[in-house]
Amino acid sequence: MDTYHLNAASICCPLPAALEAMGERWSFLILRAAFNGLIHFEEFQSTLGIARNILSNRLTRLVGHGIMARTPDLADRRKIAYRLTEKGLALLPVLIALRQWGERYEGSGPSNPVLVDSRDLRPVRAVSVQAQDGRDLGVEDLEWIDRSGLSQTVSA
Amino acid sequence: MDTYHLNAASICCPLPAALEAMGERWSFLILRAAFNGLIHFEEFQSTLGIARNILSNRLTRLVGHGIMARTPDLADRRKIAYRLTEKGLALLPVLIALRQWGERYEGSGPSNPVLVDSRDLRPVRAVSVQAQDGRDLGVEDLEWIDRSGLSQTVSA
Repeated sequence: MDTYHLNAASICCPLPAALEAMGERWSFLILRAAFNGLIHFEEFQSTLGIARNILSNRLTRLVGHGIMARTPDLADRRKIAYRLTEKGLALLPVLIALRQWGERYEGSGPSNPVLVDSRDLRPVRAVSVQAQDGRDLGVEDLEWIDRSGLSQTVSA
Repeated sequence: MDTYHLNAASICCPLPAALEAMGERWSFLILRAAFNGLIHFEEFQSTLGIARNILSNRLTRLVGHGIMARTPDLADRRKIAYRLTEKGLALLPVLIALRQWGERYEGSGPSNPVLVDSRDLRPVRAVSVQAQDGRDLGVEDLEWIDRSGLSQTVSA
């Protein structure tokens, strides 16, 4: 079975495509605002303090990548609503992981308010990379293996 | 107890600071290469196909933010090694979450090689936001509460 360690240099990776879609400061901040429930252009504009032409450009790009959808607002049909699609909502772990990292290493102490599980009102766990059995994994616990070797492993 | 739902608009958040530190396409790709074991300027340059002045600029910024450290290479003291610090290594969940998202929504089918837990050689789990008891949480399961309310909850 071919094995790759994490020091294999040129690994095929969908990360560039992901970054192409949303790897840009304003796009991230627009996404965060969308997760916080904002839907109208004016809300994004006033909350983020972003220039209108940049906001328009980034929303168009997010819509173009299928991360947000542009629809008439059901409450006021003169308005347009920008909402996260399923693909956009799937970015939640990325944003929360980045937020937690920023809180730990870039912030000035614990931030407020705190993100909690609405069922038990306890803070969410630190987002981590986990094994199938739930063990937290660090970079030293990871390796790359060829997919063919993987199927052998699974069928073994 | 004050409660915030996810539609509270202007939430204090360390995300902008985190983005300031590494929220840029090349910085992400340099980090990925560093996680893959690259340490020398020439390796980053040839692997990423990045212009030397941009690479130099981004490495300086990552070092300035404490995400990477610039040290003499112990194997060849004429060379400089760029290595992830603890703060840099803590970005692993962000990169893996973004990679998985890209694989699912931006890629062209399952990517190869596959990232596995080196102990059982099974693929890592999808990175998710979890409650303290390990339940996977979606955006509909989350809310913001004031930290003061949190301590009451914990002591209750």
